[in-house]
This record gives sequence, C-alpha cells and structure tokens, in this order.
Amino acid sequence: MGWMKKAAALIAAVGLTVSATAQTANAQAPNAQASDTEAAVAAARAYHQAQGAAIVRDFADLLSIPNDALDAENIRLNAETIFGLFAARGFSMELLETEGAPPLIYGALEAPGAERTVAIYVHYDGQPTEDAKWTHPPFEPVLYTKPIPEGGEIVPFPAPGDPVDHDWRLYARSTGDDKAPIPALIAAIDALAAEDIPHTSNIKLIFDGEEERGSPHLDDYLAAHADKFADVDLWLFCDGPTHQSGRAQLVFGVRGVTGLDVTVYGPNRGLHSGHYGGWAPGPGWRLAQLLASMKDADGEVLIKDFYTSTAPITAADRAAIAATPAVDGQLRETFGLAATEADGALLAERILMPALIFRGLKSAEVGADARNVIPPSATASIGVRLAAGNDPEKMLDLVEAHIKRQGYRIVREDPDAALRLKYPLIAKVTRRTGYPAVRSRMDDPSVAPLIDALRIAVGDELILTPTLGGSLPLYMFEEASAAPIVILPIANFDNNQHAPDENIRLGNLFYGIEAYAAVLTME
Amino acid sequence: MGWMKKAAALIAAVGLTVSATAQTANAQAPNAQASDTEAAVAAARAYHQAQGAAIVRDFADLLSIPNDALDAENIRLNAETIFGLFAARGFSMELLETEGAPPLIYGALEAPGAERTVAIYVHYDGQPTEDAKWTHPPFEPVLYTKPIPEGGEIVPFPAPGDPVDHDWRLYARSTGDDKAPIPALIAAIDALAAEDIPHTSNIKLIFDGEEERGSPHLDDYLAAHADKFADVDLWLFCDGPTHQSGRAQLVFGVRGVTGLDVTVYGPNRGLHSGHYGGWAPGPGWRLAQLLASMKDADGEVLIKDFYTSTAPITAADRAAIAATPAVDGQLRETFGLAATEADGALLAERILMPALIFRGLKSAEVGADARNVIPPSATASIGVRLAAGNDPEKMLDLVEAHIKRQGYRIVREDPDAALRLKYPLIAKVTRRTGYPAVRSRMDDPSVAPLIDALRIAVGDELILTPTLGGSLPLYMFEEASAAPIVILPIANFDNNQHAPDENIRLGNLFYGIEAYAAVLTME
Repeated sequence: MGWMKKAAALIAAVGLTVSATAQTANAQAPNAQASDTEAAVAAARAYHQAQGAAIVRDFADLLSIPNDALDAENIRLNAETIFGLFAARGFSMELLETEGAPPLIYGALEAPGAERTVAIYVHYDGQPTEDAKWTHPPFEPVLYTKPIPEGGEIVPFPAPGDPVDHDWRLYARSTGDDKAPIPALIAAIDALAAEDIPHTSNIKLIFDGEEERGSPHLDDYLAAHADKFADVDLWLFCDGPTHQSGRAQLVFGVRGVTGLDVTVYGPNRGLHSGHYGGWAPGPGWRLAQLLASMKDADGEVLIKDFYTSTAPITAADRAAIAATPAVDGQLRETFGLAATEADGALLAERILMPALIFRGLKSAEVGADARNVIPPSATASIGVRLAAGNDPEKMLDLVEAHIKRQGYRIVREDPDAALRLKYPLIAKVTRRTGYPAVRSRMDDPSVAPLIDALRIAVGDELILTPTLGGSLPLYMFEEASAAPIVILPIANFDNNQHAPDENIRLGNLFYGIEAYAAVLTME
Repeated sequence: MGWMKKAAALIAAVGLTVSATAQTANAQAPNAQASDTEAAVAAARAYHQAQGAAIVRDFADLLSIPNDALDAENIRLNAETIFGLFAARGFSMELLETEGAPPLIYGALEAPGAERTVAIYVHYDGQPTEDAKWTHPPFEPVLYTKPIPEGGEIVPFPAPGDPVDHDWRLYARSTGDDKAPIPALIAAIDALAAEDIPHTSNIKLIFDGEEERGSPHLDDYLAAHADKFADVDLWLFCDGPTHQSGRAQLVFGVRGVTGLDVTVYGPNRGLHSGHYGGWAPGPGWRLAQLLASMKDADGEVLIKDFYTSTAPITAADRAAIAATPAVDGQLRETFGLAATEADGALLAERILMPALIFRGLKSAEVGADARNVIPPSATASIGVRLAAGNDPEKMLDLVEAHIKRQGYRIVREDPDAALRLKYPLIAKVTRRTGYPAVRSRMDDPSVAPLIDALRIAVGDELILTPTLGGSLPLYMFEEASAAPIVILPIANFDNNQHAPDENIRLGNLFYGIEAYAAVLTME
C-alpha cells in the first residue's frame, strides 16, 4: 500500500476532525541501539533504490491536490492528508486553527532518551498557478525524461520495483516549492523503521499552509502555541533549492522581503491620442521616468540610503563564498543573460545585499490590443528583497521618500478631481506586508552535529552558504525559541519555483531522503 | 415608418446582393428653384424639431449592429443597412468589394445642372470594444439626461413627436466615431425633400468599413475605382469631434499616424526574485530607462531629429489659432490635468507638431496578481502622431535609431539563445503601418462656398482650424483627385471616442443635420 492509501485508511480509522490529536498507539518502539548515521544513510539509499517508483507515485498523488492557500477546501484536504501520513508513523498530530487561515500542521515524535528537539518547517501551500502557461495542468503531475525545454519526453510512471532515473523530472505545482520534503521525510522515517535504526532527536513538525501568501497568520499561531515550540533546540527549514552547482547545502540565513505597487496618473479618462497626444501627459512616460530614477543601467539602486542599514559582508561570509563553486557563468548561460547587474558581481555576494526587484508593469494594452488612447494610469509592481539589518517598513519608507523627491504627491487611494487638479504628479503607493532577513552563526555549537551528519550523507559535496536568496518568515521563529535556524533545501535549483512548469529532479528527492535520515540520526 | 424600417423594406424589395446597384427609380425629382441655403437650414431645423425622437430611435437601431471591422458578418450587415438607407433616397449605390475586407460603400446622387461634385467620406466601423469597461453593453444604445460621470440618469427613448433635449447623451460604440454623420445626412436629405429644396452639388458617398483598423484596403479600392472619384471637386470628411468649445468647425488638415511596439528582455524564463533579485536584470528597469530616454519630464521628445521635418507653423496658422477660443483651461479641468506637456503650450499648436504617444505597457502582472518573479520581458506600445512634412517610415526610423543609440540590438522576432548571450540589450521592434498628415489651403476657391454655407448655418460660431488632432487617411484621396480636403466634424469633443462609454450629445447630431442641409445647398 502506498503512503497516500495508508493515510486515507488511517484518516478513515481515526475519524479525523479538525484539531484532532492523532492516535499515537502506532508509534514504533525505537531500537535501543546507539545512533549510526552511516547506517541510516545507507538504509535510506537502499530504501529509495528499492521503493523509488512507489515514492514517486505517492508523491504525485499528494501533488494532485491543488494547494493555493486561498482555495480553502483543497488546502484543508492537503492538511488532512499530511496529518494522516505522519499520524500513521506515530507522530502526535494536530491541525492548529485560526479563523480565515489554512490549518498549521503540528506534529511531535519523541525519541526515547533524546535531549534535543529539532523542529522541521515545511510549507504545503504553493504559488498561485497560471494554468494556461503550463505545458500540463499544474495539478496533474507528469514525469519527463529530462527538462521539457531540453527536449524531455513524457515517461509513464514506473510500476513498483521498476528502475527510476535520477535525472527524470516530475512536473507539477509545488514539486520543488515546497512539498518535496514531505515524501522525503516520510521515506526516511520508513527506511529507518525498516532497519530498526532509532532517532536521536525529538522531532516537531510545523507545516505552514500559506507561506506563498506571506504567512499572514504564522505569528498568531506561534503566539497561541508558544508552549509547543519553547523547547526547540534547532529549527530546520526545509524549503528552497539546493546550490546551483547541484551540490547539497546548508544555509544559515534568508533574505527578507517586502514591496509595493506604484500607480501614476495621466488624464482622468482615456483620451484620443490624436486629439490630445503631445498635450495630455501619458502616464507611461511618468512611470518610466520614475522607475528610471530608482535604478541605474548597471542595476545600482539610486534610492538614498537604500544600502546603508545593511550588515557588512564579513570575512566569514567571504570565506564561505570563496569555498563555494562559482556558478555565475553557468547560470548566465542557462538563463540567457549576456550580462548581470552590478558589473557582473557574484550572485552569492549580491544576495547579501538588499535588492529592488521589477515584478510587473500594466497600463492599457500592447500589441494588437493596443488602442490609440492615452491611458489614465500606469502601474508598476516592485519587490524589495532585504538583507540582514534592513527593516522592511523603513526600506519602503526610503522608496516613498525617493518618489516624493521626484516631485510626487503620494496617495493611498485613486485621487479625486480636486487632488488631480492640484498636483501634476500623483503616485498611489500600495505597500505590501513583509518581514526581515534572518542570519544564524555558522559556528553555533547546536549546528555542528547537523553539519557533521550531512557530511556523512554527502561528503565534501556539502556547501555551507551564508544566506539563501529566497525569503522565509524565520524572524518569527527567532522569537518563539532563540535557537539557531538552518535551512536544508533539497529541490534542484532549476525547479521553476513560482513559475509555470515547476518540477523536481528525482535525484534531488532521493537526496532528501538520505539527508533526512542523517538529520534523524545525528550525534 | 422609421428609416431603419424603410431600409429593411427596400432591401427586401430590391433583393440586395453584394455589389448590387440599387434602383434609382425612387430618386426624387429635384425642385427647379434656385438653391437657398437659408431655407435649407430652416427646413432642417424644423425637421429635427418635429422628428427628433424618430431620428434618435432610428440611429439607435443602426448603433445596435456591432461594427468591429474584423466582425465580418456584422460589418457587412452594417454596410447592407446603410446601402438600403441611401438607395431609398435615390442614390445609385454599390458595395465595392475586395478580398478579406469589409465592403466600401459607394453612392452617387446627381443634382440636375450642378457643376460640382462633393464626395462625402464617413467610416461605419468602430474601435474594438472592451465590453467589461462599459456602463452598458456597447451595442445596446442607452439614452442619458447628461454625461454619466456628471450624474446623468437613464431616460427612456421618447415616443415619436415627444420633445428631445439637446443635452441628452446617446451612449453606444460609434455614436460619435463615426456613425453620427449617417442619420444626420439622411435627415438633411429628407428635410430638403419634404420642402422640395433642390441640391446644388452632385454628391458621392464613400463609406469606409475599416478605418479603425487603419484602412488597409482603401488605397486598393481607390485605385480599382479611380473613375468614380476622378471628378471630385471637394472632399468632405465627416469624422472627428467639433471644437472643444462646443462650436462648429471646419478643419483643413489631419495629423498622420504610425507607431511601434518595443519589447526588451530579462532572463529567458521567469526567475525567483529572491534567489536572483539584484543579479538578474529585470526587463522593466530596462524598458523604463529606454522610455525615459525618449521623452523628458516636460513632454519634449528627445529623439534626434524628431521635430526636424515638420512644416513650420505659419502666420496663417497662428492667426487661425488666435481667432479660436482657447479651451485649454476648460480641457485641463475636464480631464483632471494639473499640467500639460511642453510647459502648457496651446493644444492647437501642439497638434501642429509630431507627438510621441504612450499607448500601453505590459509585463507579467501587478497588484494582487503580481508574483515574486523577475519576468522575461516587458513591452511598451508607442504611437507617433505626424504633422505636415513627417514621413511615417522615416519617423519610425528615427525612433529605432534612438533605441540603437541606447545600446540596443534591434530584432524583429524574439531572440534565440545565441543572440541573448551575445547582446546584453536586445529590443524587438514591431512597426505598425501608418500614413502621413495632410493639409489643405484655407483660401482655396473651391472651399469658399462651403465656408459661406456653414456660416449661414451657424453664423460667427464657425471656427476654421488648420488641423485636426485625429488622423484620417486623407493622403489617399489627394492621389485620387487633387481637390481640397475639408473635414466637417459633428460629434461633441467629449464623446469618449475610442474609449468605453462613447456617446453623442443629441444637439450635436441635430447640428449635423443643419450642417449637411447647408452643404447640400451651398452656392
């Protein structure tokens, strides 16, 4: 029976209800033997070599449940399914609830004699999909021999026991971001159980259902359940891609994120471009001038004090970067970039700096749909990625101060007639919520066993990275328990996360199983 | 019987087929009396005062036929309906045909003894509609007490004989641009016929079915039927709005029009803005810098030689402008503009200059739909309005030369991988077809009787304008017959042409009836 079927059977058996605590009677009695990470990794490897086809099929079943956080019915179905998967493996499970939010999945599994508690964070929601841009519907997983743009061909899902190629790609929303840790952790637990290899740490699960919407309720959840997390000794964040070189990595920080939309105005209605062109100001010119004032042609942000609050890049950071294979050339080729920002500075250094991101532009229509009309407004969506030291609100304040310095009157709603006639330049700024960057020390004693365990799994392949480019709401966990926060990513870097045709390389999924086996048995 | 019903009856009677020549048996025998423009205008006024309600209802019927030039079935239904309307009034009608185009409606009505032939141009197609942005569906005409944004309320269509308020607005696509001349001309003919007032000119009709798509076949039509137009002594173009002051006008030229779309590129796929933000160039910054390089904050075009080929503004132009009421202040208020381009220069002067027009922007999404992705490309749609002396292709060459000077490699298709890696800055330029401006002399002897006749209709209200802001393909007619070209607009300036909620003020429709009565009887 695949694990999805097991979960369904369990849910039927225990009569799952919201916030129910699952039966723990199924918990396996851990073997009393001393932990052996080498044996654990070997067991995990043997397990995925034998069960690879079943693991992939079961993962595809999980991926078939749509997981936009705003799709209340399906996001709950995801939560209940995952609840069942871990309850079946002896975890004490709860679906924590708060009004208007997806459940936070909580789980706990004690290891007899363990003095350490490791909390594992995963998010089970995915980015909204633009179905029309996908090769296949995003919640109908399809297996390919290699990436579609490289000529990959569809391969049928293998039968149990059939061989599975590590370079195959499984396409579906959240393959990489961020459901992959779920089957990987399940398989690691099953592999250890099959060999009676005991866990060395108590494990807590904290699976977020609205990370892609900015985790708006996570703070509330952590506050309401502070007792559950006060004893955490190590936060393990399982999200994001592995290093672009394909090598395993541990990451000791994340960028923060925030942003805003800015709308500038022309005439209060669409005006015939013949009768009024050359006289009535076009909002697109104004928006272009405003955006061009924010960033120069080399990518340097021109907003006053934008870089000032950033923590300096330390010698330790530079050493870690120097020990990391430079992938910039490969990335430029992969992404079709003849040049990158900041005169070709290293990506690894650039993500230690705040960045002003172009996300989108909209005004009237272009191409065949464009009309000979001067449109009333033009909007740009701008993201801000934050480095250590940058306060999200203060960074948005700097952007707004810059807009003001360009002569704009800033408003929060579309301007009325009186305001339009008073100010030639009006910008509506809509700020998004955000959160700061977080950095942990690489030499924290709580972190050493984790690094050692991962080295047993992957040897010198392991890369230690000061920060991940992506953002995770880690600051909330710093408050919940002052333990180090380390990120253990498993997805391939080219997984198209947040974009159409998201995918995972199967070898990365299998690496995840070995990595979790190492985590569960670290000294 | 309303004229729409008459037309339907006639079509049924004569068995209308494509390119059929209508029966001329119904042609009215013109009264042998000398023309009398004063009597004609008085007859027209009495007619619309008595028949206003019926005229509006019949116009609404015509507006109910959708008229996007690409809607082949409906555009033909428009042509056949209009054919019937004029055939019923004695015109020799033909639907001229060329493959893949709407019919060109041709008609001729001789006035016994007349030595002059006046060709009347109208276009019966309308701009594509964005139905969701309309208060009512664009082809379901609705009558309002005044403009909707000014608090207008729906008023039922009046019964025949009921009074009609001149300030009422009829909302539907093409009310102003450009079906209004059709009911106005029909009513003028009927008014003169009712009083046995003879026409003084032979009349030719040339009704275009794809003006809003750039009249791509008009040249072919004119070449194929050169014999029909060689004897034209005066081209009368019935399109565009009256002066913004609300006063009647004759216009002696039009701007030309062309344009292009420009797309610039970032990474070859959407990239996670956390992992790559600050390193991978965002196409929106590039597009903003490119657009900002084209036009300064005051609206001055910075493209080299953009203004050079323009015919100088003459003393006659300036005199005509000086005699015209300055409406700039009123327009700024109406359109909610605290400032206009070129340091507030007069609109009447600005439309004698070429203009670079912002039409639209598009890259990924903004607002709630925006994602944390660096998009692969960004596109701007740019229009160019042309003044006398500007060659459309050469003007686009200047824009392209400017783009090159900003460091861009110009391409015509999306770049392939090799090109992307070779050139940091790539711009795909898609040029649109266009046509030049046309200007006629205000003191041409053929024009004097027209000016005199209109003065009889409206007195000192008549404004003589060097050029219209809008564009019409007049250059084609210059080639067909070297006669003066004069524009006689009737629509209110705030008719929202090309935009949602297009409308006509009924008083403007009635003015059109009087103006055509004057044209049909000019000395």
